[in-house]
Amino acid sequence: MTRILALAGGVGGAKLAYGLAARLDPAALTIVVNTGDDFDHLGLRICPDLDTVAYTLAGLNDRERGWGLDGESWTFLAALERLGGETWFGLGDGDLAMHVLRTCRLRTERLSKVISDLFARLGVAHRVVPMSDDPVRTMVLTDEGLLAFQNYFVRRHCAPSLRAVRFEGIEAAAASPEFIEALEGPELEAIVICPSNPILSIAPILGLPGIGERLRARRVPVVAVSPFVGGAALKGPAARNLRDLGFEPTAEGLLRYYAPLIDGLVVDRSDAPGEALDIPVFATDILIPDPVAQARLAGEVLAFTGRLRADRS
Amino acid sequence: MTRILALAGGVGGAKLAYGLAARLDPAALTIVVNTGDDFDHLGLRICPDLDTVAYTLAGLNDRERGWGLDGESWTFLAALERLGGETWFGLGDGDLAMHVLRTCRLRTERLSKVISDLFARLGVAHRVVPMSDDPVRTMVLTDEGLLAFQNYFVRRHCAPSLRAVRFEGIEAAAASPEFIEALEGPELEAIVICPSNPILSIAPILGLPGIGERLRARRVPVVAVSPFVGGAALKGPAARNLRDLGFEPTAEGLLRYYAPLIDGLVVDRSDAPGEALDIPVFATDILIPDPVAQARLAGEVLAFTGRLRADRS
Repeated sequence: MTRILALAGGVGGAKLAYGLAARLDPAALTIVVNTGDDFDHLGLRICPDLDTVAYTLAGLNDRERGWGLDGESWTFLAALERLGGETWFGLGDGDLAMHVLRTCRLRTERLSKVISDLFARLGVAHRVVPMSDDPVRTMVLTDEGLLAFQNYFVRRHCAPSLRAVRFEGIEAAAASPEFIEALEGPELEAIVICPSNPILSIAPILGLPGIGERLRARRVPVVAVSPFVGGAALKGPAARNLRDLGFEPTAEGLLRYYAPLIDGLVVDRSDAPGEALDIPVFATDILIPDPVAQARLAGEVLAFTGRLRADRS
Repeated sequence: MTRILALAGGVGGAKLAYGLAARLDPAALTIVVNTGDDFDHLGLRICPDLDTVAYTLAGLNDRERGWGLDGESWTFLAALERLGGETWFGLGDGDLAMHVLRTCRLRTERLSKVISDLFARLGVAHRVVPMSDDPVRTMVLTDEGLLAFQNYFVRRHCAPSLRAVRFEGIEAAAASPEFIEALEGPELEAIVICPSNPILSIAPILGLPGIGERLRARRVPVVAVSPFVGGAALKGPAARNLRDLGFEPTAEGLLRYYAPLIDGLVVDRSDAPGEALDIPVFATDILIPDPVAQARLAGEVLAFTGRLRADRS
């Protein structure tokens, strides 16, 4: 049964998730993944964060490009361009199998069931579950107007400034049964918020009805791992997003953003706070480009949650 | 305006269609293509005959394999297999762009409009139109039971014997506007039935409500080109299909099958009838593996239809 519940978005979250999976038995870990970035494109349901986590855990991800499958081919996209189709969203030939099969099965099955089957086929041993089986769509209110997430993220390369973020459908969305099961399970020891974009990747998960209450009700440590090194995001717009909404991309800023939810914070040494914060902070090297570093950080995070648990009892 | 109306199925029909396109201005030719083989697979609408004709006319077809695109890659199918998806139907990575884009556009547009746009993008200059915008699905009653066309054709490799063929939906299907327009146009000079499977590829077109009557009402020659050489089909089950339904794969058999619709028959020299039939027969080399041979046969067919017209006046 789940001892560690990890909340993750895409690339950054997938890296720590890989490390956690390397440290923990399949039964001991549940990774709940943001689906706010999901969208329908060319009639296909695309779930970028789920696929990034699954490809990473299966060792099939392209580490250089940062997304999609290793050894991918691009014949589809070239043919699509010839046909005048929209090519702004990168769809590799192998990746497409996931989108086509998932879209087809979603006509009659819920997302978490489909995901569970398909990811098992990829060789993912640990539980990777969508935050919800219901559609939640991240909409970004920017200085250029309201944009659907992928329009902001891929089409506009995150150029516009954020004014607000809205998760369409979230009021009516239920957390997935697997998420609830892990969260309510008697063996749960800690909840790890992975180094994903707090505003675009983690907020949709925490914003699901009842999830904040359930997290606070559990008497297990909740630890957030910072996605920043030296006050900047390693990838993506997380630092700018936080600033746009009035938070600094620092230990203090993250604590203020995640309060009162978290009990501990893991930050990069370069971001270690000058003076003590209200919660324990563990400073280490959070740059984890390879599996060895990912497993190392995961081990440190697990040890940190262990110390927090011990302090409580 | 259309002078020559060609009726075609897949590979064999596409070869003569290529020859006709080489001989005729785009405005002078309309190629009406069977859609009875169309089916939904993995949530995608596949139109095998339409695509074969278009890929061939655009010079993009793989001539060795006999179907699909030249220079195709197969990453999707390999990934689909890994995911446990159905791989019995060959879907190339580039080919997939057609299926995905068409399926997406069919939600709001009729097939002939979508086809017209997409085929123009491929560089097809001549009009290639579906026989109908409405679904017609060829069902094959065999000694192993009733099979959907692709199950019979691809999955079962045409192994079962035919007892009957049924075109589901045909009573309610309307010939496409472009088909009717070509058929009723004042410039029409001849109708050419391409060397496609008479029972599986041509019968659905001729079986559309009112098409037989309209064809007979036109006072232009209707010429069928035999798909046989030496009493055998070059490819596919056409010869066996005819025999299963009580017709011989010969000039006499084709005349009996197509009567009273056709006014002339083009057969291979090896199949030239021993004695005169009720209609003019032109014997030539109907093996047309390459563009030069295809244009040569098309020229002969057009000249034959010209002579039939001259004889009438």
